[in-house]
Amino acid sequence: MTDNLENQSQDDLETHLTQVQNLLAKMRLVEELVHRQGGPRQDLVENLVHKQNLAELQRKLEDLHPADVAYILEALPLNERLLVWDLVKAERDGEILLEVSDSVRESLIQTMDKAELLAAAESLDTDEIADIAADLPHDVIQELLTTLDSQKRARLQSTLSYPEDTVGALMDYEMVTIRADVTLEVALRYLRRLGELPDQLDKLFVVDEDVLIGVLPLKRLLTSDPEASVAAVMVEDVVKFHPEDEAHEAAQAFERYDLVMAPVVDMAGRLIGRLTIDAVVDYIRESADSDMLSMAGLKEEEDLFATVWRAAKNRWMWLAINLCTAFVASRVIGAFEGSIEKLAALAALMPIIAGIGGNSGNQTITLIIRGLALGHITPVNARRLVLKEIGVATLNGLVWGSAVGVFAWLLYDNPALGGVMALAMLLNLLVAALAGIFIPMTLERIKRDPAIGSSVLLTFVTDSMGFFIFLGLATLLLL
Amino acid sequence: MTDNLENQSQDDLETHLTQVQNLLAKMRLVEELVHRQGGPRQDLVENLVHKQNLAELQRKLEDLHPADVAYILEALPLNERLLVWDLVKAERDGEILLEVSDSVRESLIQTMDKAELLAAAESLDTDEIADIAADLPHDVIQELLTTLDSQKRARLQSTLSYPEDTVGALMDYEMVTIRADVTLEVALRYLRRLGELPDQLDKLFVVDEDVLIGVLPLKRLLTSDPEASVAAVMVEDVVKFHPEDEAHEAAQAFERYDLVMAPVVDMAGRLIGRLTIDAVVDYIRESADSDMLSMAGLKEEEDLFATVWRAAKNRWMWLAINLCTAFVASRVIGAFEGSIEKLAALAALMPIIAGIGGNSGNQTITLIIRGLALGHITPVNARRLVLKEIGVATLNGLVWGSAVGVFAWLLYDNPALGGVMALAMLLNLLVAALAGIFIPMTLERIKRDPAIGSSVLLTFVTDSMGFFIFLGLATLLLL
Repeated sequence: MTDNLENQSQDDLETHLTQVQNLLAKMRLVEELVHRQGGPRQDLVENLVHKQNLAELQRKLEDLHPADVAYILEALPLNERLLVWDLVKAERDGEILLEVSDSVRESLIQTMDKAELLAAAESLDTDEIADIAADLPHDVIQELLTTLDSQKRARLQSTLSYPEDTVGALMDYEMVTIRADVTLEVALRYLRRLGELPDQLDKLFVVDEDVLIGVLPLKRLLTSDPEASVAAVMVEDVVKFHPEDEAHEAAQAFERYDLVMAPVVDMAGRLIGRLTIDAVVDYIRESADSDMLSMAGLKEEEDLFATVWRAAKNRWMWLAINLCTAFVASRVIGAFEGSIEKLAALAALMPIIAGIGGNSGNQTITLIIRGLALGHITPVNARRLVLKEIGVATLNGLVWGSAVGVFAWLLYDNPALGGVMALAMLLNLLVAALAGIFIPMTLERIKRDPAIGSSVLLTFVTDSMGFFIFLGLATLLLL
Repeated sequence: MTDNLENQSQDDLETHLTQVQNLLAKMRLVEELVHRQGGPRQDLVENLVHKQNLAELQRKLEDLHPADVAYILEALPLNERLLVWDLVKAERDGEILLEVSDSVRESLIQTMDKAELLAAAESLDTDEIADIAADLPHDVIQELLTTLDSQKRARLQSTLSYPEDTVGALMDYEMVTIRADVTLEVALRYLRRLGELPDQLDKLFVVDEDVLIGVLPLKRLLTSDPEASVAAVMVEDVVKFHPEDEAHEAAQAFERYDLVMAPVVDMAGRLIGRLTIDAVVDYIRESADSDMLSMAGLKEEEDLFATVWRAAKNRWMWLAINLCTAFVASRVIGAFEGSIEKLAALAALMPIIAGIGGNSGNQTITLIIRGLALGHITPVNARRLVLKEIGVATLNGLVWGSAVGVFAWLLYDNPALGGVMALAMLLNLLVAALAGIFIPMTLERIKRDPAIGSSVLLTFVTDSMGFFIFLGLATLLLL
């Protein structure tokens, strides 16, 4: 809380970014001038203007909150990013690495040697080290483990042992515990002796030999009679988590019950750590982002200024999968090439059937994915959902099917073609509705994330089936 | 915090839902039995088993936290939802209405008369009334305004006057203020006299005649010398917001600086209210959801058990827009019907060009939308982004273009067709990259949300241009 926080709004942040960019542009200009005069690199470093610019940039960076430096690093192309990174004071490296996105962190860590990485990591808490551990070289982690004291080492190892997306991977160890048999007066004196309290601390954990028996909200501590005992004032009925619990369920509990922090206990009820709202908010943001990225067919978060090669690799998996499904759909059309030769209008009309089917199915699949994530879909109500979606598809099929049917009829002056168009639309919307329900529900049942890849599968079904239904009906009824 | 919170995990929640569903199923069974025996509705109500089931259901609901009742209401189909809603004690109506989603709230409010709505609203704070005001009938709001005292009325009117997505619409008025010239001892005694503190309160606001001059974090209040003055211990450099600030920028500040609550002040620095992390988390969740829904082509959040008619209306706008774009793409193909008649293979291959272009463009557009939302894209670095995306598109075009070229060559034993396929793929990927950058950036520049509709525009461009490039090249080079 003692960091500089004047610069809270996005506008201010963008001003800072622009100032840094302007300084960097000035420095580029000086560099070019020196080069044009034929001077060697040495001249540049000795150039007074260059030195002044560097100093100004450094001062600017020192004034900023680590999260704001992280923002600027993320918004700069690689070469300028590394220049700025070099200017950041070494003792701030750790907290800034913690704030940047995974892909940008990778680009920064690549430029640091082992000693720098060790120094950065040692400035962090164990749960924070765990957050960046995935990006640290193996030998740095090993060395780090030998330098930590035994409690911290055990904590780091246990945090690293929990899978991503569990409470164990998100929790930290900064908590304040107290016994139940003391008075609030004693508790207050104890806190004053501690001198400093962790961030996001809104309650003390009441323990009996490591076992959590309740919590004492600071609110109650502040408003109750100081003579009362902790036992009399504490809350026993408390939301708590196990480290193995899934992070998204914990996040839902935080949202549902408006929590700021909650204890994490083992199966025997012993207190292990705490989960705080800031870790939960980061988790919510990251999982919303990764849903969006994976639905768009990106393997992982991508640095906006990644090299062409890295960016292309990030996108290949889904493009390759899409290419395969497109090939299959193409072969479905290939099977009807004879019909298309006789009536080329079919080729012009078929993408409408496939496209609207895909769009309509995507609407259904999105609602189902969301309903699954919120736990609203159960075996008992699934049947009703199917009936509703079939109802919507039928209604849409009649309305939009008629529209496209009339369009085809008028355009090609062929009422039978219009009829085939309308019927194919209705059928493909029904296919889309069923695929939109059953694809995510099946992925969920086989314990896969229904958000990833279900859209690709859906489009595959609506394209292939759309072409097959339309061209098949046309071949049967028109030719 | 005194609510029942034993049921925190998703598993527990689903157990509650299943229990409610089982009770409802039992009640349906009894109902059917009574009807089969030819008894009138009256018999059912007088049936002992039915009464017992109702009582058990009511007990079950009384034990649950309002957020959990909301979850169950959302997961139940309309008729059962309304039965459960009837059983909920009237004094809990308000807090449950606050927790359910907009669309479900609408379905519940429709069944309530004016007196019930007024009673429910009166049990809420003014900022909470504002949250549900959009769904309340106009005459209820009017009557409510007359029953509130003048301070509350002024607050409700001012909260209602702020647009959605501003800090003013999210803030509440539950804060504790203190003067700077008293000692911490006095502050502690003042809090004890208050007896109860608002939720999510982690700091007191220090004011000088309504003007915010600093904050006193509870952490500091608890750990500092009680003899010290508030002025000596308070923090002056504090993140604060104006009610006109955009909610998404406030949310980013909460994430960036790990805030639990922050003061809201007017332009003169006078304290108006506070923004808390629970409101911010709800906002983050809702805007992530609404991005996902609008990208999938749904006008608004949809009740999972909406009627077919309502659901269809929610989906029509985007289906209609898609239909128009599909018509245009269809006319592009129509212009080349002569070519297709001569070489039906073109019809089978063209969806591959359009499809991969769409997928690749969607990857680009997603990264750009995200970069814009995070403020990483500025006029200075936009040029580099364009170069990078053109690089990726060229690389992908060469790799995947060759792959589909060879595929077409082998399949149709026609090397020239393979060449056209490869070239068209490369060109359409370039079109997709440029469209993926410029569509969201243009929407942003004209102050529209780049997430809404940009995907539809993109697919329109990649489809139409894909068909045009491929069929055009084929007509020029092959026929």
